[in-house]
Amino acid sequence: MNDKAKRMERRIALTKLLTDSPGRLFSLGYFSTMFGAAKSTLSEDVEAIQQALAEFGLGKLETVAGAAGGVRFLPYVSSQSTNEILTSLAETLASPERVLTGGFLYMSDLLFDAHIMARVGEVFMTCFAQSRPDCIMTVETKGIPLAMMTARAFNLPLAIARHGSKVTEGSAVSVYHVSGSNRRIQTMSLPKRAIAPGSRVLLIDDFMKAGGTARGMIDLVHEFDAAVVGLGVLIATEEPSQKLVDDYQALLILSDVDEHTKTVKIHSAL
Amino acid sequence: MNDKAKRMERRIALTKLLTDSPGRLFSLGYFSTMFGAAKSTLSEDVEAIQQALAEFGLGKLETVAGAAGGVRFLPYVSSQSTNEILTSLAETLASPERVLTGGFLYMSDLLFDAHIMARVGEVFMTCFAQSRPDCIMTVETKGIPLAMMTARAFNLPLAIARHGSKVTEGSAVSVYHVSGSNRRIQTMSLPKRAIAPGSRVLLIDDFMKAGGTARGMIDLVHEFDAAVVGLGVLIATEEPSQKLVDDYQALLILSDVDEHTKTVKIHSAL
Repeated sequence: MNDKAKRMERRIALTKLLTDSPGRLFSLGYFSTMFGAAKSTLSEDVEAIQQALAEFGLGKLETVAGAAGGVRFLPYVSSQSTNEILTSLAETLASPERVLTGGFLYMSDLLFDAHIMARVGEVFMTCFAQSRPDCIMTVETKGIPLAMMTARAFNLPLAIARHGSKVTEGSAVSVYHVSGSNRRIQTMSLPKRAIAPGSRVLLIDDFMKAGGTARGMIDLVHEFDAAVVGLGVLIATEEPSQKLVDDYQALLILSDVDEHTKTVKIHSAL
Repeated sequence: MNDKAKRMERRIALTKLLTDSPGRLFSLGYFSTMFGAAKSTLSEDVEAIQQALAEFGLGKLETVAGAAGGVRFLPYVSSQSTNEILTSLAETLASPERVLTGGFLYMSDLLFDAHIMARVGEVFMTCFAQSRPDCIMTVETKGIPLAMMTARAFNLPLAIARHGSKVTEGSAVSVYHVSGSNRRIQTMSLPKRAIAPGSRVLLIDDFMKAGGTARGMIDLVHEFDAAVVGLGVLIATEEPSQKLVDDYQALLILSDVDEHTKTVKIHSAL
């Protein structure tokens, strides 16, 4: 195989390796061993991949200088792509057959769709990159896939708070909170090992109405002597406009679900 | 930009698009519009990408012929890589500081690590590809990230059974099962919309001891007039050797956790 064919092959493999592990820092030395290529050659490869990704709005490569440096893929989403993703989601959610008894909206199929949640996780990563979180946190159950995909986009650990503490996870910290939809008092707990003191925590959830669950998550983070640097929710309801939390980023706003006419009003918040 | 530079750029972008959405079928027409390239040119691109991925053991491209055809990425994991992934996981899990009171093992950090779970999900996809599932199912909570990543590798919908049914997901089907670790009777339920009758369901969970939870999932699938085509668990305990389910694929076998000496015996099952 000639040099040009080898170069093509190497750049394809590099693209796969880098983009498939967002946020992971690969040293040029690692690639050098893997491909038997000089670091200067690999720098040219990285430059070419960076240009191609930029050309088609597919994220960017970041080069970190120094002995502990290397290159990593950051899956930034353009505002145009974000717009397309959210418009498409809103359209899908507005379908009449999603309206359930009680005026709820069936959305588990979307919340549990890996490819859609991967894109939404990248949107959250783009929104909150400036906040420099070092940990993502959610509460079970329906927000877990989205929080996981956000953690993937950032390459950060994920902590999942649970309702009631489980003996199989060691000692835990618990807080009480008021669940917004039924005004019940619930416990929410997290293993002590899940968040290190001083962490910068980004909270991610699928849905927010009154904000009681989000309030509980914030209280829980404070119990760990950690800081909340952001709160992202996929869907927030328009009412009540006064939530139990002040500062949050919703991607979609749900204004109304009419159980009788099967009409859903939902739109992008960005 | 000359043709060769354009070709390089296009192949890098194609690699990102294909490998970032495993299992998703892209038509050549779609790519043709996106890149302004002839389908014959794109076929050559696909061939080159396929060869490069094969060369470095990074999965394969599959071409589907016909009007509804196209190309998709299948993240098959080689047996050598599988071995490396499982050996590394077993070593990490055998660390003394993971031993909790009661002889439990702390593993949430690994179960909630997106990059590690992505690899394990691909291992399950490789194991169960022959079973041709059309849906992945798990039960909340700790197995969700792994099940989600398995669903991502397959490009299949994910259903998440919950303990007790939630009013916000519409009508649901419930079963009783005995939880293995504490012999308690628990309910497990799934929204009626989550699984279509006649589905071929692959069950994925993080941990199995007696198999009561797995038994409950199997019973639940049967209530939907659907079939279980496989059961994959990341870790199965060696004892009891007689489980409540007969046919399962574990990736790791946990033989012993000694609370006093902080010794953990765990090894790859493959």
